[in-house]
Amino acid sequence: MAEGRKIPLYERFAQELEAQILAGTFPVGGRVPSIRETSVKRGISFSTVVQAYQLLENRGVLEARPQSGYYVAFRPKMETPEPVFSEDRSDPVDVSIDAVSVGLIQDTLKQDYAQFGAAEPDPSLLPTAKLNRILIDLAHNGGASVSIGGSPAGREELRVQIAQRAFGFGCDLSPEDVVITGGCTEAFCLCLQAVCSPGDLVAVESPTYFGILLALEAQHLRALEIPSHPRTGMSLDALRFALENHPVRAVVAMSSFSNPSGSLMSDEDKAEMVGLLASKGIPLIEDDINGELYFSERRPQVTKAFDRSGNVLLCSSFSKDISPGYRIGWVAPGRYFDAVLRLKMTLNIRSAALPQLAIARFLESGGYEHHLRTIRRAYARKVELLSRSVAANFPEGTRITEPQGGFVLWVQLPGRLDSILLYREAQKSFITIAPGYIFSPSRKFDDFVRLNAASWSDRTEGDVARLGKLVARLVAGKS
Amino acid sequence: MAEGRKIPLYERFAQELEAQILAGTFPVGGRVPSIRETSVKRGISFSTVVQAYQLLENRGVLEARPQSGYYVAFRPKMETPEPVFSEDRSDPVDVSIDAVSVGLIQDTLKQDYAQFGAAEPDPSLLPTAKLNRILIDLAHNGGASVSIGGSPAGREELRVQIAQRAFGFGCDLSPEDVVITGGCTEAFCLCLQAVCSPGDLVAVESPTYFGILLALEAQHLRALEIPSHPRTGMSLDALRFALENHPVRAVVAMSSFSNPSGSLMSDEDKAEMVGLLASKGIPLIEDDINGELYFSERRPQVTKAFDRSGNVLLCSSFSKDISPGYRIGWVAPGRYFDAVLRLKMTLNIRSAALPQLAIARFLESGGYEHHLRTIRRAYARKVELLSRSVAANFPEGTRITEPQGGFVLWVQLPGRLDSILLYREAQKSFITIAPGYIFSPSRKFDDFVRLNAASWSDRTEGDVARLGKLVARLVAGKS
Repeated sequence: MAEGRKIPLYERFAQELEAQILAGTFPVGGRVPSIRETSVKRGISFSTVVQAYQLLENRGVLEARPQSGYYVAFRPKMETPEPVFSEDRSDPVDVSIDAVSVGLIQDTLKQDYAQFGAAEPDPSLLPTAKLNRILIDLAHNGGASVSIGGSPAGREELRVQIAQRAFGFGCDLSPEDVVITGGCTEAFCLCLQAVCSPGDLVAVESPTYFGILLALEAQHLRALEIPSHPRTGMSLDALRFALENHPVRAVVAMSSFSNPSGSLMSDEDKAEMVGLLASKGIPLIEDDINGELYFSERRPQVTKAFDRSGNVLLCSSFSKDISPGYRIGWVAPGRYFDAVLRLKMTLNIRSAALPQLAIARFLESGGYEHHLRTIRRAYARKVELLSRSVAANFPEGTRITEPQGGFVLWVQLPGRLDSILLYREAQKSFITIAPGYIFSPSRKFDDFVRLNAASWSDRTEGDVARLGKLVARLVAGKS
Repeated sequence: MAEGRKIPLYERFAQELEAQILAGTFPVGGRVPSIRETSVKRGISFSTVVQAYQLLENRGVLEARPQSGYYVAFRPKMETPEPVFSEDRSDPVDVSIDAVSVGLIQDTLKQDYAQFGAAEPDPSLLPTAKLNRILIDLAHNGGASVSIGGSPAGREELRVQIAQRAFGFGCDLSPEDVVITGGCTEAFCLCLQAVCSPGDLVAVESPTYFGILLALEAQHLRALEIPSHPRTGMSLDALRFALENHPVRAVVAMSSFSNPSGSLMSDEDKAEMVGLLASKGIPLIEDDINGELYFSERRPQVTKAFDRSGNVLLCSSFSKDISPGYRIGWVAPGRYFDAVLRLKMTLNIRSAALPQLAIARFLESGGYEHHLRTIRRAYARKVELLSRSVAANFPEGTRITEPQGGFVLWVQLPGRLDSILLYREAQKSFITIAPGYIFSPSRKFDDFVRLNAASWSDRTEGDVARLGKLVARLVAGKS
């Protein structure tokens, strides 16, 4: 503002306020700060503010209400902003992994879209009513303790519950072994930071969750893709070869229901992998976020159960089964506990207490196991129905995984169709999908898409049919 | 467990369960999982679990209650764990900055200590009752929306409120310019990551907040200390010299009420610093966490108000004035918006919705300004009273800052006394302080301590007197 010379101060101030109204800072119908308040806070004379407000009143932007103040009466219509990634999508090869990844999350905000993109759980399968009852109780009893600080490791109530559940699946964790994090993503970011330095090489599944690739990129780490079977997971032969031929500093795996392929390593392979990595002193960062969402009789073993040396850093969260909005995950970092705790404090001191306590009370209440049984059945059914629908509606040559847990399908398109084309065309039809190329740093899966079966319902069957027609049209157009 | 050979399975399982009871996973009086549940989940035969439980019952650890199950009857007494930093404190020169820093946060959990260490706000000055009423309302109306996902930038309701307040202090931010973070600490961590690469040099105030130094260390960045006056802040001459002679990649400043010194740069100096850095294209990361806690008539200008090129990344939070437990901060990253948003998504997708919405409603309610006036007066008074008490109780030669905002005092001890000695002795007397050396990577402030005036009350006056006697004793013992 100090740079203007000819425009009088009141007019410049009016322009500034008008721009803020346009930007949504002051919504239509809302009050703008009083003349007195603005004058004091901004250090502008009372009469200048009066002049500015009158100018905007004359333009119909503000409206004076007697004994009440000035209100926003009118806001010039803004154009819908373009999605963040649109600029980058002019040519397929120019799309960067991160732009589409951020786009996938932003896509979930589009309420009229069929949401097969991001791997968000079905909102109707979250225990929201029960959580709300717990919140009310927390606000009445224990509200003071959520306002103040606490340990960087997180609330003990929750760590006790996590240790109890871990005991149930054969991991001897104590509450002192656990650090609460902002979701599973923050957990594996802290683990990578604890065990690696910039430039280090990290072995990952191929395909692997794009969030892991983003974390590697942000921390200046390099990725080594280990071939992974869509049913049985990471190939141990390939891993052994990689360790012998490359300076691998850490391994990241989702050994139970990998994202995106849904693969599940056998208990024997898990034990062997843990032993192999322990013998070489290479830490294993296990992303077990889908571990509880199994479709069979029993939870598969978690690699941490075979860990004798503290070499496994076990990461998980409650984002898939309790609430993605609460952002509560956790890590049992084994012998890297001190490093992870220090990094957690360095990053954001500690996670918010309120969602931690709410989840702790939900777990204490004993309803969690019943809830899990319900959603396991529901997701198994959704995965099965979406799979059948894709098979029926997509052209011949389409291949589909048969995951035994989680809630995503990994689909190979016929005719080596580039999934970024499908991604773009589907957007125009109000359908979001996750294109395969973001799951591989070397773009090995360009002709795959990941579909979120949590969004499956009778109402979305038509969307799958439309998607199938798009695939057929693109394949035909290509040949 | 697979490695044991001679001990029978039930006994090994009993040992495992006993260890978990000792570790606190299953508290005394609580139920352990039923025999049936354990057998199914762990894949151990029913009779093996029965044998194990009976063994522990014989030892008095478990207690069977008819028709109810097994309960923990007895837990061997554990020794109080040593604080994390105790090992490292055997010799002053061996203490690493991070060990004591993590210790400062852990110290706040010791309820019988006088808390002059961490810069936590006074719990009685937080609007906890009002927040609890808002939570109850949120649980009744809008609870569903906090369970599901949302934009990585955070809840729009809160971003609108932040943009409105920023307008009040002369920053033209729109809600689309703001990213919500896990406190101010996460905000500046994301900013550093957005503008720097490993090995880069970052200019910081001297002394500077140890959290900033921890962030530099975690990101493999180097620090360049710019001399900063305890009253007027960073020396612009020194900064200019530094920029001419070193490849500085970014500057981090707390230009309003720096932590620990409480210094305040003049509006003119702020404008000049912003212009200087803009002309060189060097981003300024401003930590404005104390900006609202001024003791004078008006909020000091924030550097972002002088920013014409998007070169200033403004970070702040509600941890000092509304709630440290909610962990809600924010950043307006200027031209680095896209990079910061991508890193936020990479790190933890988004911040928890519940604390964001609660704070947004508190701000919408209009009670925030009144609340701020109340706590500004209270902290001004606490700072004044603690300052007088230190002056009266510490030996001659002690020097104290006169901060015009915030709530910490920066105290230089007489006789060049090493503050780590005082830190250790004070711990033995149940008093925590922040030793000066953690505020400088080159340990320029070994004879300083930072005291948290938020802990001042009539009841803590005696603790200051005891602290003063300790200082006198140590100074006498030294000479």
